[in-house]
Amino acid sequence: MAKYSIGVDYGSLSGRAVLVNVETGEELASSVLEYPHAVMSETLPDGTKLGVDWALQHPQDYLDVLATTIPAVLKETGVNPADIVGIGIDFTACTVLPVTKDGTPLCFLDEYKSNPHAYVKLWKHHAAQKYANKLNEAAEAMGEKWLSRYGGKISSEWYVPKIWQVAEEAPEVYDNMAYFIEAADWIVWQLSGKYTRNSCTAGYKAIWHKKDGYPSKEFFKSLNPRLENMVDEKIACPVSPLGEKAGEITAKASALTGLKEGTAVAIANVDAHVCVPAVKIDGPGKMLAIMGTSTCHILLGTEEKLVPGMCGVVEDGVLPGYFGYEAGQSCVGDHFAWFVDNCLPASYYEDAKAKDMNIHKYLRLKAEKLAVGESGLVALDWWNGNRSCLVDVDLTGMMLGMTLLTKPEEIYRALIEATAYGTRKIIETFEQNGVPVDEFYASGGISQKDPMTMQIYADIIKKPIKIAGSTQGPALGSAIFGAVAGGAYETPFEAARVMGNLKDTEYHPIPENSAVYDKLYAEYSILHDYFGRGENDVMKRLKDIKLAAKK
Amino acid sequence: MAKYSIGVDYGSLSGRAVLVNVETGEELASSVLEYPHAVMSETLPDGTKLGVDWALQHPQDYLDVLATTIPAVLKETGVNPADIVGIGIDFTACTVLPVTKDGTPLCFLDEYKSNPHAYVKLWKHHAAQKYANKLNEAAEAMGEKWLSRYGGKISSEWYVPKIWQVAEEAPEVYDNMAYFIEAADWIVWQLSGKYTRNSCTAGYKAIWHKKDGYPSKEFFKSLNPRLENMVDEKIACPVSPLGEKAGEITAKASALTGLKEGTAVAIANVDAHVCVPAVKIDGPGKMLAIMGTSTCHILLGTEEKLVPGMCGVVEDGVLPGYFGYEAGQSCVGDHFAWFVDNCLPASYYEDAKAKDMNIHKYLRLKAEKLAVGESGLVALDWWNGNRSCLVDVDLTGMMLGMTLLTKPEEIYRALIEATAYGTRKIIETFEQNGVPVDEFYASGGISQKDPMTMQIYADIIKKPIKIAGSTQGPALGSAIFGAVAGGAYETPFEAARVMGNLKDTEYHPIPENSAVYDKLYAEYSILHDYFGRGENDVMKRLKDIKLAAKK
Repeated sequence: MAKYSIGVDYGSLSGRAVLVNVETGEELASSVLEYPHAVMSETLPDGTKLGVDWALQHPQDYLDVLATTIPAVLKETGVNPADIVGIGIDFTACTVLPVTKDGTPLCFLDEYKSNPHAYVKLWKHHAAQKYANKLNEAAEAMGEKWLSRYGGKISSEWYVPKIWQVAEEAPEVYDNMAYFIEAADWIVWQLSGKYTRNSCTAGYKAIWHKKDGYPSKEFFKSLNPRLENMVDEKIACPVSPLGEKAGEITAKASALTGLKEGTAVAIANVDAHVCVPAVKIDGPGKMLAIMGTSTCHILLGTEEKLVPGMCGVVEDGVLPGYFGYEAGQSCVGDHFAWFVDNCLPASYYEDAKAKDMNIHKYLRLKAEKLAVGESGLVALDWWNGNRSCLVDVDLTGMMLGMTLLTKPEEIYRALIEATAYGTRKIIETFEQNGVPVDEFYASGGISQKDPMTMQIYADIIKKPIKIAGSTQGPALGSAIFGAVAGGAYETPFEAARVMGNLKDTEYHPIPENSAVYDKLYAEYSILHDYFGRGENDVMKRLKDIKLAAKK
Repeated sequence: MAKYSIGVDYGSLSGRAVLVNVETGEELASSVLEYPHAVMSETLPDGTKLGVDWALQHPQDYLDVLATTIPAVLKETGVNPADIVGIGIDFTACTVLPVTKDGTPLCFLDEYKSNPHAYVKLWKHHAAQKYANKLNEAAEAMGEKWLSRYGGKISSEWYVPKIWQVAEEAPEVYDNMAYFIEAADWIVWQLSGKYTRNSCTAGYKAIWHKKDGYPSKEFFKSLNPRLENMVDEKIACPVSPLGEKAGEITAKASALTGLKEGTAVAIANVDAHVCVPAVKIDGPGKMLAIMGTSTCHILLGTEEKLVPGMCGVVEDGVLPGYFGYEAGQSCVGDHFAWFVDNCLPASYYEDAKAKDMNIHKYLRLKAEKLAVGESGLVALDWWNGNRSCLVDVDLTGMMLGMTLLTKPEEIYRALIEATAYGTRKIIETFEQNGVPVDEFYASGGISQKDPMTMQIYADIIKKPIKIAGSTQGPALGSAIFGAVAGGAYETPFEAARVMGNLKDTEYHPIPENSAVYDKLYAEYSILHDYFGRGENDVMKRLKDIKLAAKK
């Protein structure tokens, strides 16, 4: 009798369940629910206004995902719930909410339903920026050594700035919540009845270290006296490594989802990191790039190295027993979308429409005809700042080489190439700091839909690129962890080798192209350092002038 | 009884006559003829194919202009030809043709009508580029001191590369022509029966100097032995300063034009330079910018200074008794046209169309709402290389500061600002090298149609800008010289003060804007020197890569 597992992937706008055969990795069915409340950035459901840069979600939506998508995949496949060995879940992060001792979200309580701080703060809630700035200043002033594990900067998107914002702006919420919990761990709690904390979000988002733990009480107290015992009071939970079982489906969760009581529930995970086993990565030296509007890079290493500009290094943060490294590019697909929205002439739209063709595909058809270097353009991929390796949101975009003959497709291609140079810069930074990158894998929308871009990446990074076989990488990854939690495999490594999935197509560098790209990358590198490492801080000065002009 | 003069302006695609009251400067009538043969860049009239970068014209078209436009303005105004005191003409330059001893164009002769070298080489004929390159190398190697008067480079558009091309590629044309003459001087010959050479084209285009004359025979011989006696054989004419009378309308010219025999004909002029008296400029320190697809800057000085990167300094080259300085920006309106053609989203076109608005006007309405510095962008205005002060056609465009929120109107405005920074750079270079720029005047299409751009220029150069009153600046300027030749005024200075014409509107710098622009200009200057003066020759290396890629 075949056995199955279920993975549930919580994205920014929807949740998706996928049902997978644990012996073959075959995805038998999937089901999606768009969150009814989507992202709340203007008002709460009762009309309460939100401030600038707020981004909230409603936890009821997450429960609705469980209640609709799991029954749907069970029904579609006709699989007997008794044959589901386990369930895994992954989530955006750091996506956090305040809950009571029994796990009830504060926003479910009448007295808090008009209080914005009682809701889920979505990963891209940026209203805690000033706390992040102060946190970084304080950490630097106090010589906190954990700072270097995060490229020298804690993001406003992460756990401590978010909880600090609650403590400052809604002390009543802070005082009355039992825990401030990652939505990922909260869902595992709803399924298994167990309060756990996963090592991935703890490490990457909440400044936890396997040996050193969290930052000190003294440090937190220096930020705000209320935060002094934050770890003991509002986290108050040991950290579980990925790959472990969190617990089993409760009677209540069984009623909600149709899963059998006692089905294994895996420790929660993060959407990017869980993609790693989904592409069969089972050890160090294999970098995965999840390529979409932005790109996230995940890499396993055998030692803890401090690599300048990475987003974080966490032991057990991706797969147990390894140091998981994360790096990122804050603008990839967004570059191409910006260009299409702001810089593409009407004639191209008209022609694409006449050909009934997606505008990106239309541009690619023109761009792929260009020889490498033919455009004479080079760009810095910093339209949304630089996440790795410069960790500087105040950097901005640059392009040069334009002539009166420069065509839109040349600019489009230069933007694609710029993001590939940025990836090469990240790879080289890892390699130069003792973390080998032997193989390169790509998942995410661009990897699936855009062969031209993938070939350009292969030519520029000068490594073959393997492509994720599943378009539902996170959900498949969660199903892999579900299978491990259910005992179908001893370790996620074994499960990854069987259930992970790669396309037959690989992209191999074309040596003639790589030879030209080496020259172009040398130019990119000179400009990268000139504008990015302080020799000419024009981008920052322009931002200052811009801020003053907007007053 | 009122007296009048006529100015005829020969442009790239048409010729225009204007009839002006010499006592008031009032333009009573104008008439235009599009050249029937336009620009020949593919074939001769008989189908003979032309090479790459050729641009020829047919001299019959120029005669047709005389035969149609002068009678037209006489007829329209009813002015008695006896009351026309003189005629002046201006022409594009260096626009040159081979003629026989009696002034017959070689292309009028049957035996030459299929020979491309027998026709007029228009100013933008670029097929002599390789001769220009060799000429510059040779001049540098031989330490020719005249080179520094032309910013260190002779353009392929000028006289010597063009005649050298004839000598190399069509020796039979070279040997059999009596003269290789500027079209400007040829038209004066057709009108007056006198073979003259004007100091403007001789100085700016044919390397003539009032004291030193032309380059030496030895130099010309080193290029090609055929050229050794080129000056004596193919020019063979003293140089006349602007403002003099060349001769009088002959019987033949009277029959062609309807002008009275004996009417004064002024020494010929160039379209840009002749604009100077048309805006009432009557002495040194007053810079005129003629702003269109590119910008030409003309300035008078009292001494010969070597200003790095100017296009030329010629004694008597603009107005008699002064050193005329010329500088230029090779890409101004062309920047804005490139942007509109290649980088403007469909939605903007649709909206402009719905509002029945010219797309540039539509963009200006958006761009003028931006505060100075608000876009956070800065650009280098080098999409078509840099004419002054770097004299480097291999430089290319650069823009930086883009974010995902950058809007098309911000890019558009940044391009406008970049051209204004380029103008400030030219002004400062003159001032730093001992040639004062006390006042600034603008003519050309942009000055007439684009108040936002003119205000930006005033804010950036920090000088008031006076605007040409006539949209037919060259023709008015020629009429001024015609009036002087006809004795209505003793000097072109007096004539300019009366007949020249300025709008009432002046643009004055707004100090708050200038304060911000000073900061932005400082950034422009850093980037200008970094990319333009050899610190990072990335633009040239990209051009090399591009050339290799196109092979």
